[in-house]
Formats: sequence, structure tokens, C-alpha cells
Amino acid sequence: MSASAKPFSFKLIKTDGMARRGEISTPHGTVQTPAFMPVGTQATVKAMFMDDVEQTGAEVVLGNTYHLMLRPTAERVDRLGGLHKFMNWPHTILTDSGGFQVMSLAQLRKLDEDGVKFQSHIDGQRYHLTPERSIEIQGLLGSDIQMQLDECIKLPSPPEEVKRAMELSLRWAERSRRQFETMGGPGKGQGLYGIVQGGDVPDLRIRSAEELGKMPFEGYSVGGLAVGEPQDVMLRMLDITTPVMPVDKPRYLMGVGTPDDLLESVKRGIDQFDCVMPTRAGRHGLAYTRFGKVNLKNARHADDPRPLDEEAACPATSTYSRAYLHHLVRCGEGLAAMLLTWNNIAYYQTLMKGMRDAIEAGTFEAFYQKTKEDWARGDIAAL
Amino acid sequence: MSASAKPFSFKLIKTDGMARRGEISTPHGTVQTPAFMPVGTQATVKAMFMDDVEQTGAEVVLGNTYHLMLRPTAERVDRLGGLHKFMNWPHTILTDSGGFQVMSLAQLRKLDEDGVKFQSHIDGQRYHLTPERSIEIQGLLGSDIQMQLDECIKLPSPPEEVKRAMELSLRWAERSRRQFETMGGPGKGQGLYGIVQGGDVPDLRIRSAEELGKMPFEGYSVGGLAVGEPQDVMLRMLDITTPVMPVDKPRYLMGVGTPDDLLESVKRGIDQFDCVMPTRAGRHGLAYTRFGKVNLKNARHADDPRPLDEEAACPATSTYSRAYLHHLVRCGEGLAAMLLTWNNIAYYQTLMKGMRDAIEAGTFEAFYQKTKEDWARGDIAAL
Repeated sequence: MSASAKPFSFKLIKTDGMARRGEISTPHGTVQTPAFMPVGTQATVKAMFMDDVEQTGAEVVLGNTYHLMLRPTAERVDRLGGLHKFMNWPHTILTDSGGFQVMSLAQLRKLDEDGVKFQSHIDGQRYHLTPERSIEIQGLLGSDIQMQLDECIKLPSPPEEVKRAMELSLRWAERSRRQFETMGGPGKGQGLYGIVQGGDVPDLRIRSAEELGKMPFEGYSVGGLAVGEPQDVMLRMLDITTPVMPVDKPRYLMGVGTPDDLLESVKRGIDQFDCVMPTRAGRHGLAYTRFGKVNLKNARHADDPRPLDEEAACPATSTYSRAYLHHLVRCGEGLAAMLLTWNNIAYYQTLMKGMRDAIEAGTFEAFYQKTKEDWARGDIAAL
Repeated sequence: MSASAKPFSFKLIKTDGMARRGEISTPHGTVQTPAFMPVGTQATVKAMFMDDVEQTGAEVVLGNTYHLMLRPTAERVDRLGGLHKFMNWPHTILTDSGGFQVMSLAQLRKLDEDGVKFQSHIDGQRYHLTPERSIEIQGLLGSDIQMQLDECIKLPSPPEEVKRAMELSLRWAERSRRQFETMGGPGKGQGLYGIVQGGDVPDLRIRSAEELGKMPFEGYSVGGLAVGEPQDVMLRMLDITTPVMPVDKPRYLMGVGTPDDLLESVKRGIDQFDCVMPTRAGRHGLAYTRFGKVNLKNARHADDPRPLDEEAACPATSTYSRAYLHHLVRCGEGLAAMLLTWNNIAYYQTLMKGMRDAIEAGTFEAFYQKTKEDWARGDIAAL
């Protein structure tokens, strides 16, 4: 934390129903919430220049501890001056704990009380990730907002399994917190979030949130959702969980989601999101717009001279014809991914700004209705 | 050609030895020569935004008739307002005739006096490309500088084969010119170039250049080089050919080349170049710099905090560490291709500007020596 940098803090500015308008401060800037955090897995938001990510209005990006610990390694990033400098992003960075990707990507995983042993999916090298090591890595990366190591299990799982994982995650929360303090995280102005687990079992979600609430975290995540369950299960869990989460701390719903997921979750009191959806969709010819999702592969765009949305401020959205985007997608050109990812990140940021403005104006419900109507109306091309 | 647009013209500003400093005017702007034209095969310079291509100093890009006639088709580009609008490039566009790619990419080719029949490498659809159809396509695309259809044969080939192809190309030159006038190319301010063929046979090169010189082309290309022969053969052919080419028309060496090829060819009186090398190399982890070629895959860059060239104006070159570029290349990230392609196109443009300035100052020979010394000195990292 430089002399002028602020330590982690959260200010709740306004509420509208359960929806919250807030501001997070970190040593690398402020983040207006509700906020969507583009995913910068391997120290890059795929197919985008960070200047353009910034221009979309994003104030924080996410880095993946699992990927970065394998390549280029946390120690190397530290030697090179930290992740902000490495990837040329001077604003806030949040890192996950690595646990989720160990479970979804790594080979020969073995989890016990101490942590999780696994082999890299790249070269088979062996690693041991513990709560302490995860925080150490995140500290070396220089992350502003760090996550405790947790065990995120797939849904559906038997309730006793969900309970075991939730309780293990609580013990890991304590160990993560101790390590965060050993590393001097609070003195550097960084924040550490505890992660609510408990799968789709209401009582376990409540107990997890209550227990974590007793520990001095700077923020709280809701983990283990959007892992295969239907949207209504996820939203029911939020309905149950957010009311027992601390009011004065930011709430981050991990790995979520579609534009509709964001709208529904903000309505339920969530402040932060991350998801690969807009970036991944952009690499597969899919564009998110005010009027829903557009598949640019579709032949009906081949002769369409109109841009995705001429009213948008984003050049990728307003400058190029659908016919051109269709051509690029069909040809597998890199520029298709570059333009559609840009469009999608810009759309997500526009949606978040719309929600923030509506909460401030006390008109969130109207915004919610209007946004859903626009999506339902369908692709602008159909007008 | 809009009211304010100028018709095609070429002005020879200065010579220094055989090297020439000139300016081409087209309906879409001026092009300072010697010029390198980035290749925009499928209506995109791969992995670059056209705004960034423009910022590197490029004033003209090349489009490939073969690719564009297959996808999205010339008729579609015409309906959508022409290639400039389609790809968002308001400056000069040069198109090739399609002949070279038919020979290198298409299936089941059959060439006769009339033209060449082939099947698309994408879907097997049958096409018939004649001199007339090539010019028709280039006219529909709205290209400012068009190429005659020619037959470009591989080297080495038997002299009688080289002669046959050269003579066919002369007959196709006449047919191309007639079609160009039928299409109203001159009235639109566009230019058509004849293409010198003759392989590695000096007499045939001279005859081709002399015969073409009698026809009223706006410029002249040297084709059929850089097709497998050693550099010294290519340069010997230039030594023989450029002295018999019209002095008052631009000379374009097609498909060339390495930075050293450019330097050697400008020295021999060439004004225009195109090559996929800088863009293709950029997608394969290779960077061109003042001090030679740098392979970013190499492990020695993993901890190198220095940029490729901190003195360069291009952000891709001066902002990111070699360690970061190495990481992106190793991870196969799209941003690696984006940054290295940008660096390479920027370096090529810097090299061309250096040559233009040197010719104007009458110091080309010194520039030539200094540039070769810098390359020989090797990668900046070795200093």
C-alpha cells in the first residue's frame, strides 16, 4: 500500500429493497457496487487489451490462483513486481483461492484436513495447496481482495457430504485468516473474504454464514452455487443466505453468471460477481445485447448492415456491421473473439451501471422489469 | 471516387542510388513509398484492430481476392458498401488477383488459356477465375489498387514452363486491362498493375517487363519471386528487372518479405511490399525488433522485466515485459498474438519510415549499413 493508497473498506451508500449500492476501496482504487469483475484467468482477460477492459467501466478484474501458481508461478510474479504490474492493470485485483480449479481441472486430486494434493493439468507436476499456501500465493501476487481456501462440491451431493465440506471450509476459513494476518495483508490494506458454503441445504448455508460472520473478514462470498443446479435453487439459497450475512460487508457471488442471474442476484442483495460467460461466449460467436443474446454464426446476419447496438458507446458494438461480425466468426478470425468479447464485457458493465443507477434512484424494480422486457423482446435485428 | 478524392497517381520525390522515395495517391488517400502493406487476407489484419494498424503508420493494406470471393463473396461486400466500409478501413486498399492463392490453396485446379477452374478449399464449391472475373471481383470490392490475373509458377521450374507462364500472363495482362476499363476503373480513380513474371530466367524477366511497359498500367508488380528460391536469386532478378521497368510508375514486389528482403529490395528500386511474415510470426511467438528477431517462447525471457524495445512508440513493444509476453506465448493466450502482431507491424512500418527518411536525406547507404549492424548485434536482451 503506497502512502496515498487507502486500506480496504466498504461503504453501503443506498438500498432499494434488498438491492444494495455500495463502494469498495482498496489500495488500487475504488469499485462501485454492484460490480461485475471480468475474469483474467492467466493474467489476461482473454482476447482483450486491458485499456479496453478499463474503458468498459470495469474497476476490478479477477485472477485465478490455480492457473497463476502453475504458470508463471506466484514467486515469479512477485519478483517481477506483482500481478498489477505484470498484467498492466493498475486497478483493483481480486484472486480466488485456487480450490475451485483444483477440483475442476487438476489431476489425481487428494483432499484431506490439511489441504489438497494434486498434479498440474499442464505437465503433471505435484503441488500441495493448503489454506496457508493459498493465502501466501495470493499475497505474493499482491491481490487486493483475497479468498479463503474452501472446498466447493458439485451439486447434487448427499447432505452429509455437503455438511462435511462446509465444516472443513469453516476450519480452513480460520486458518486462511491467520495466514492472511501473518502475511501482513491487513497492514497492506488488502482484504480477505470468507466463503459461505452449504450446497443446497438451507440450514447448512445459514450456519456457514453465521459462523463466518463471527470471524473478522473484510467481505463474504457465496460459493458453491452455479455448479450445476437450476437457477431457482441458486436464487432460493440466496434468499436464505443474504439475510444472515453482515450488512456492512461486501457480498460476492462467485462464478455467476448470465445477465439474468446478475439481475436476480442484485435484487437479493449481492454486490460482486465474476464469470467467464461474457468472455467465453465472445470467443464462440455469441454477443450479449440489450435485447438478448445474438448468435453471430447464424446465416441471417450475413447481409445485415446494422451494428449490434448503434446506441452503445463501445466501438465493438456500434461500429461494425453484423454482416462483418458474422463473416469474422464464420472464418474463425481472431478479430471476432476480440470484438465480441469486448462487446460482451461492455454489455455486462452497462448492465451493472444500470442497476447501480437504479438503486441510487430508488427505481430498481422498474429497471428490473424493463430489462427483462427488453431481453424478452429479443434481438434488435427482429425489430 | 468522391468529389474530393484524387485519381491514382505516382510522384517520384527523390532517388538515392537505385532507392526511390515516392508518393502514391488513390481515392482513399496517399501512400508514402517505399511502403509495406500489412496483409488483411479475409478483410481483417489478423489479431489487430484496424485503428492500431493505422497508428503504426500503415497507409495501405492488402486484401486477398481468392479468400474474399469465397467468403463473404465480392457481390455481398459490394451490397454492403465495399471493402473499405466492410472492414472499417478508410484508407487505401490493394487487392491481388486471386491467382496466387488459387495455385497454393484451392483444390482440383485446371488452368487453360481462358483462366483457371478450381474448387474452394472450404466447401469444394466450383469456381472459374478468368482475367475478366478477377478484375470484376476487385471492382466489386472497390479496391484502389488492383492486380492483373497472372500465372505464378513455383521455382525451380523448367525454362520452357517459365516462358509459357510468362507469355500467358502477358496475354492475361491485356485482357485484365480491357476489363478494368470496361468496369470504369480509371474513371473511379483506381489503378491496375501489370505483373512481371519470368521466374529465374533473366531474358524472360526483361521481356516481360518490356512488354508490360508498353501497356498503360498505373503501376508494375514483380511477381513469382519469394516462391522457394534463395534470396540471392531473388535479388539478382531484381537487379535485372527494375532497370527495365518504367521509372514514373510504382514498383511492387509481391509477397516479400523479411526485414532484410525489404532493405535489399528498396536498395534495388522497389516501392511497395506485402507479406504475411510479420502477422504470422506474431501468432507464433516471434517478435521483430531493431536488434533482430526475438523468440518469446524461449525460457530465457521468463524473468526478463524489460520490454521488447523501450524506445518504441508502439505500446505493445514498450509497455509489456518480455516475461509477460513469454508467459502469454507459453499459455497460448490470444493476447500474445495481439501484442506481437502489433509489435511486428509497427516494426515493419518503423523500418519503412527509416528507409524513406534516409532516401530523402540522401543517406540510404548509411541507413542500410547501420540497420544491418543492429540486426547482427542481436536481441536487445543480449546487451
